[in-house]
Amino acid sequence: MHDAESRTANLLGATALALSDLLLSGVGAAAGTSGSGAAALVVLAGDPDLSVTELGRRVGLTQSAAARMVDGLERQGLVRRTSTRGRAVAVRPTEAGTAAARRLLAARGDALGAALRHLGRDERAQLDLLLGKLLTGLCRLPGDAERLCRLCDRDVCVRDRATCPVGQADRDRRARSERGARDEQGARGERSARGKRGARDERGDPDDG
Amino acid sequence: MHDAESRTANLLGATALALSDLLLSGVGAAAGTSGSGAAALVVLAGDPDLSVTELGRRVGLTQSAAARMVDGLERQGLVRRTSTRGRAVAVRPTEAGTAAARRLLAARGDALGAALRHLGRDERAQLDLLLGKLLTGLCRLPGDAERLCRLCDRDVCVRDRATCPVGQADRDRRARSERGARDEQGARGERSARGKRGARDERGDPDDG
Repeated sequence: MHDAESRTANLLGATALALSDLLLSGVGAAAGTSGSGAAALVVLAGDPDLSVTELGRRVGLTQSAAARMVDGLERQGLVRRTSTRGRAVAVRPTEAGTAAARRLLAARGDALGAALRHLGRDERAQLDLLLGKLLTGLCRLPGDAERLCRLCDRDVCVRDRATCPVGQADRDRRARSERGARDEQGARGERSARGKRGARDERGDPDDG
Repeated sequence: MHDAESRTANLLGATALALSDLLLSGVGAAAGTSGSGAAALVVLAGDPDLSVTELGRRVGLTQSAAARMVDGLERQGLVRRTSTRGRAVAVRPTEAGTAAARRLLAARGDALGAALRHLGRDERAQLDLLLGKLLTGLCRLPGDAERLCRLCDRDVCVRDRATCPVGQADRDRRARSERGARDEQGARGERSARGKRGARDERGDPDDG
């Protein structure tokens, strides 16, 4: 990296660290729980009845760490495990859990709003575009989108037909990978047809003449 | 917050979370230690011989948590406690600790550089300005500057007479608070002089005449 770029990298790293300190301590305190627990409550508020494994995946925990986190949230009366007919155990937020998720989204919004107050309207619009590009780049792997947005107030990003850049990047990635799979299948079909023709050529099949 | 601002807040929060996930896992792995331990090694590389308490303050840990972290780093052979004549015990990085700090700054730089590659040169320059403003706003309390820059590759930000916006905000804050203290002292002196004059007036001192 050039010096100017290294400096921007430092600023980006320092901003990320400062905001995540602020957000994790703020949201943790608002929900009376750990950073992962707080993220789990926000995820469940938008998407209840996830399995323990899926919930863990979305907040970046292994299966066993996720099980311990759910134990803790259950002891605090914030979630309960429900067993639905024919399906694995699902984690569902209690009323207290849903209220905690609301509180922590409000605390997160306040902290981020306070940070943004140091920019003018045009600067915020500039920042919006730049962050959209950064996030599109950061969302490279399947499942990244849900992890990146785990603490987001999701309704806000899609109001008035707006598009969440992370969701869009995820849809684009899926479309590319499906197109790739179709192309690969087509190429395999083509190779196999060529192979058969080649074999017939070698055998000197009459219908090739 | 308005909708557009709430959306920018979400993007800012998601970027912070994504990058801090990336940085903390990356730097932790590069140093073979926790996020705080990694930050401590970077801090010590620039500023060796800090006390345990001061080191803890700079990486956001309480005194007892900092002592446990230093124990861990000492067991890994990354730091050692030294006692200097007439001063409290100081924590000094070993050669292995200094090498680990170099590795983790390189890992952090790679991760941030990869994120920035999604922006063009002009966009990076725009982002640089906007992050500088955000960081200036985020650095409000004494000691914030050192905490915010705890994982920074500090030399980069001040090369070629450039200024670290966090350091500048900290110096401005100190200057304001010293000016405030001087003004307050001046006002107290003025009040006290007025008070004495008033008392003399009441007593009808001759020299007020």
